[in-house]
Amino acid sequence: MASQTAQKRIEGVLAPVVTPFRPNLSPDPDRFVRHCRWLLRSGCSGLAVFGTNSEANSMSVEEKLELLDALLKGGVAAAALMPGTGHCALSDSVKMTREAVRLGCGGVLMLPPFYYKGVSDEGLYRNFAEVIERVGDERLRLYLYHIPPVSNVPISLGLIERLLERYPGIVAGVKDSSGDWNNTRAMLERFKDRGFDVFAGSEVFLLENLRHGGKGCITATGNVNPGSIDRVFRNWRSADADQLQAGITATRKIVQEVPMIPALKSIVAHFGNDAQWRAVRPPLVELTAAQEAGLIRDLKAAGFSMPGLG
Amino acid sequence: MASQTAQKRIEGVLAPVVTPFRPNLSPDPDRFVRHCRWLLRSGCSGLAVFGTNSEANSMSVEEKLELLDALLKGGVAAAALMPGTGHCALSDSVKMTREAVRLGCGGVLMLPPFYYKGVSDEGLYRNFAEVIERVGDERLRLYLYHIPPVSNVPISLGLIERLLERYPGIVAGVKDSSGDWNNTRAMLERFKDRGFDVFAGSEVFLLENLRHGGKGCITATGNVNPGSIDRVFRNWRSADADQLQAGITATRKIVQEVPMIPALKSIVAHFGNDAQWRAVRPPLVELTAAQEAGLIRDLKAAGFSMPGLG
Repeated sequence: MASQTAQKRIEGVLAPVVTPFRPNLSPDPDRFVRHCRWLLRSGCSGLAVFGTNSEANSMSVEEKLELLDALLKGGVAAAALMPGTGHCALSDSVKMTREAVRLGCGGVLMLPPFYYKGVSDEGLYRNFAEVIERVGDERLRLYLYHIPPVSNVPISLGLIERLLERYPGIVAGVKDSSGDWNNTRAMLERFKDRGFDVFAGSEVFLLENLRHGGKGCITATGNVNPGSIDRVFRNWRSADADQLQAGITATRKIVQEVPMIPALKSIVAHFGNDAQWRAVRPPLVELTAAQEAGLIRDLKAAGFSMPGLG
Repeated sequence: MASQTAQKRIEGVLAPVVTPFRPNLSPDPDRFVRHCRWLLRSGCSGLAVFGTNSEANSMSVEEKLELLDALLKGGVAAAALMPGTGHCALSDSVKMTREAVRLGCGGVLMLPPFYYKGVSDEGLYRNFAEVIERVGDERLRLYLYHIPPVSNVPISLGLIERLLERYPGIVAGVKDSSGDWNNTRAMLERFKDRGFDVFAGSEVFLLENLRHGGKGCITATGNVNPGSIDRVFRNWRSADADQLQAGITATRKIVQEVPMIPALKSIVAHFGNDAQWRAVRPPLVELTAAQEAGLIRDLKAAGFSMPGLG
């Protein structure tokens, strides 16, 4: 394996960056780089590009590698990146993870292979172990991606235990998008003191996660509300932490009233004055005009803005 | 669009061909071609390569295209092939479908994009329509793949209606792996007289499907029991059809006692005397020795054999 580096682990607020598409639905590197740069100067400490909210699985490996390349050429620091690299196909996961490590990414966020359902922990263990062994690089920081409502393939505590025991230092943490605080708390209690960093999958759990030893959150609405979410991260020990948390939870609830991914894109399109941002790839569908109008009205009524965008 | 051809539609028994892997888990074209040739001379009228039972989603697009190339170079007729070409990523589905049509494949069997759950029929319609438009070839014969227990993304009757209305002749049929005969029957009643060919997803429903106007079955156990299943297809109007059907149903039930994909591979390994066939890619796991021993014992007790294999 390649030599170990002592790069600092990513903490704080990460956005699973929404992916802009051109009118022909090809990924748009220019808009992508611009949005990533805005996120990093507006409160995000890291970028979980190629996540669920990025429509990552609606893109080929080649399309994602081209976007990654554009980001680095656009001056985004690789250390701030935690790209999604988990695919159904072992060969795709290896290719994408290897490339992310080679480019110096701070970590990778890895879905389990999600086509077959009801698979065993033994099978999932073999998947992650194969990727780690084939990449064969001590610089790899692998964050497991637990999102059973979408993947339908959970990452159990037993699986984490086994991976952490075999690959300490490489298996670096988890994003818990179960929406179940009891599960996040169980992960924290069992693994937080073993070099395993727990990120909440929504800012709704950010303060609780930090109070129990978690490291931050990787959240859809980080795409549009990074400053306020980061304020909770930076001030979680302060007297007004609960009040700050209530504010970001309220904003989240407004966005959640409509389908999340097209909602995020509508918000970026509206506040950035750039209609092309509304494009989604099938099987997703953009918001209706009425849905978007209601969303924007409610956000504005709550004092929401995106300073410096567009 | 390219000129129309009058190629006969595939009917009868198709196997979703299991994919052999080498010790390093790379796909093994030589074993694959040998197995495909055995299937075609043993009762299969077509090969649904790259299906669920093929571990297709555990392979990259490139790995699948190499196997397809090996098949054609190995003398397998393209007209007998119905490769799986549906991926989560629109770009992957287009690439694979375009290549299948260019090579002259008899059809393609297309999964819906299966990462996002609870997506709308509008979004799924756009996915299939985009693939059809981008491939832009009248020779395309697209079979929809309805397998909600695995994909968790169903193909509704309303979606079929809309696609068939817009793309008659190209939208050619369905594989119904719902396991719900009422659903298969509803598809038959509504679409069978409109150039839409219904294949049962298991030979358990083969006779019923044929009696209601269906065209055959695409079935996992077609990999190991093609002759007996084909006998039902060829003799479905005969007096002993129910008895023949009972025989293949009984064999299916034995195989279903253990996980299907590793079971099929164990059977091929045992009866073909070729241990390497047992290899599966993660997240699947091969049968235990005890599971395999029980399976083979039960099959032999039922008089099962694989003449001409190995």
